[in-house]
Amino acid sequence: MTQTKLIALDWGTSSLRAYRFDVAGRVLEQRNLPWGIMHLPEVQMGAAEKQGFELAFTQACGDWLHATPQTPVIACGMIGSAQGWCEVPYQKVPIASHEVGGQLSTVQTQDGYTLHIVPGLIQHSILPNVMRGEETQVIGALSLLTEDSKENARNILIGLPGTHSKWVQVQQQPASLQNKSALIRHFDTFMTGEVYAALCDHTILGRTMRNKDSEGNDVNACTLNNASDNDAFLRGLKVAQTAAGRGGVLATIFSTRTLGLTGVLNGIEQRDYLSGLLIGHEIAAMQALLEEQTFQLDHVILIGNATLCARYQQALAAYGFTNVDVAMQATERGLWALAMQAGLIT
Amino acid sequence: MTQTKLIALDWGTSSLRAYRFDVAGRVLEQRNLPWGIMHLPEVQMGAAEKQGFELAFTQACGDWLHATPQTPVIACGMIGSAQGWCEVPYQKVPIASHEVGGQLSTVQTQDGYTLHIVPGLIQHSILPNVMRGEETQVIGALSLLTEDSKENARNILIGLPGTHSKWVQVQQQPASLQNKSALIRHFDTFMTGEVYAALCDHTILGRTMRNKDSEGNDVNACTLNNASDNDAFLRGLKVAQTAAGRGGVLATIFSTRTLGLTGVLNGIEQRDYLSGLLIGHEIAAMQALLEEQTFQLDHVILIGNATLCARYQQALAAYGFTNVDVAMQATERGLWALAMQAGLIT
Repeated sequence: MTQTKLIALDWGTSSLRAYRFDVAGRVLEQRNLPWGIMHLPEVQMGAAEKQGFELAFTQACGDWLHATPQTPVIACGMIGSAQGWCEVPYQKVPIASHEVGGQLSTVQTQDGYTLHIVPGLIQHSILPNVMRGEETQVIGALSLLTEDSKENARNILIGLPGTHSKWVQVQQQPASLQNKSALIRHFDTFMTGEVYAALCDHTILGRTMRNKDSEGNDVNACTLNNASDNDAFLRGLKVAQTAAGRGGVLATIFSTRTLGLTGVLNGIEQRDYLSGLLIGHEIAAMQALLEEQTFQLDHVILIGNATLCARYQQALAAYGFTNVDVAMQATERGLWALAMQAGLIT
Repeated sequence: MTQTKLIALDWGTSSLRAYRFDVAGRVLEQRNLPWGIMHLPEVQMGAAEKQGFELAFTQACGDWLHATPQTPVIACGMIGSAQGWCEVPYQKVPIASHEVGGQLSTVQTQDGYTLHIVPGLIQHSILPNVMRGEETQVIGALSLLTEDSKENARNILIGLPGTHSKWVQVQQQPASLQNKSALIRHFDTFMTGEVYAALCDHTILGRTMRNKDSEGNDVNACTLNNASDNDAFLRGLKVAQTAAGRGGVLATIFSTRTLGLTGVLNGIEQRDYLSGLLIGHEIAAMQALLEEQTFQLDHVILIGNATLCARYQQALAAYGFTNVDVAMQATERGLWALAMQAGLIT
């Protein structure tokens, strides 16, 4: 087995991903396990409180550690929450990106290994905001930037669409300055994906919706990126730009039903229309917040599922955003960068 | 039994209310039955398709009709929808209020009675809008206005808060003019109540919420008006007025959770806070639409559940609306007025 330099875990609510890195930071092996912190392996009655975490940890990387016991192990995500293995205090935003890795917490496993856990970020204000896991992806995306792009893009907006979309404002220091760190300045959360699922599955809007699986059977899966009808998606996307769009999400969503009643959208199109409508409202509102916060951006980077990022690229284009890229492997790169910052690897 | 002049049914999705009127338009008797069109009495296998409607109708007013078989019967609400007893085509908005009663549809019952059904209203536009039942309440509220108030209030906004809140713009003709009708000019729908229930019951926001019943036990009922903590409600109400409120509903709702995480709101307060937050966004957006539609109003009338109307009165006051009243018995008055318009009674 090629020498392992770092083991890294992306440990969220519903899944656990494990990465084994070589000395050059390349991912040699990746494992996807279903052991999110809310779905841990079952343990015997009377087992120690944290036994589920121990079992999942051993399945994720026990053999790797057995082969090279001195390998450092780092983890990010909900594993550091109050419901996780060990609660890691949030770091306050604004924060320099190189400071996040200076505040890892540790937990000792039964087998004597040390797990280093990345803190999440908190933003105190009238409406506080939190993230756990996304900070690692942001740092990963920043580590992928070339020196050229750092020179040319001082203000970067990093978007992480999904269940809870995050939009993170980053101010780059020019690479010519001594301190090459970036400032994580501000972030906002939009519950777009979760609201979409709740509207489809638990309101009157879902009653007239239809979806087809690959066999042509009706299914009722509801995620923002299973949409397939691009015209209906684009129609929805534009709603927030119209005069009627000033009615906001609570009002405009009702049109999903009425455009069905009036024969304009069929059951499949209604699903795509609502997806576009919500994403359009998200982008329009995010744009209003950027203006409010006087953040003039040079570059947008998206991180996430490829299909969903493609939809958000369409949405950003419709709302006048240019210079939009998608960052790949942001989580792996972020875990590597944070392990470097923390001195776990050199 | 005092002479029955009119029998009127308010027949919605989840309930059926029956009213017996005397010759002066007073309600002599009222019955509340659980037979909404989606909850009809069970019928035997092989029964005729509409048998559930027949059974509910007989329970609601069969004895009244038996006593005075010539009494006209009128109904409003979802009974006239595609899922109802007989689909009644929508009337187009804008429409003069006295024209709604000119377009009733009829259905013959097995027992030989005629049921007259009030049409709903439709507003064709990029985002179409519909109502069934609320048009009757609007007409009822208008019929309750004094001649004085008609002279003084040319532009009236009628609000019907609830699962799907409606805001209806009405232009009164001065009583001195020959045509005393009012123009139902425009209306908007906000899915505030249904979105609130879906967020509480089916998203992460509900997980940290708590509610108490009169015994002090935790319950999980989710309607906009079961809220009890007025400070938390007021705190939520103001969110849409802040700079952060520009993020819109999809963003601001996440603060329900983060204000819990940061110890600002307990589980009960989170429920009230979210109620206020959504209602505040509704009022702010409705205000923006009024501006967009250049409707300068003189008077606001609320129709609905007393507790919920009180909450909306607080909300309207917070957003600068003055001259707000609550109309009582709007449905009964509307059914009576429509029966008059239709010539069913004189």
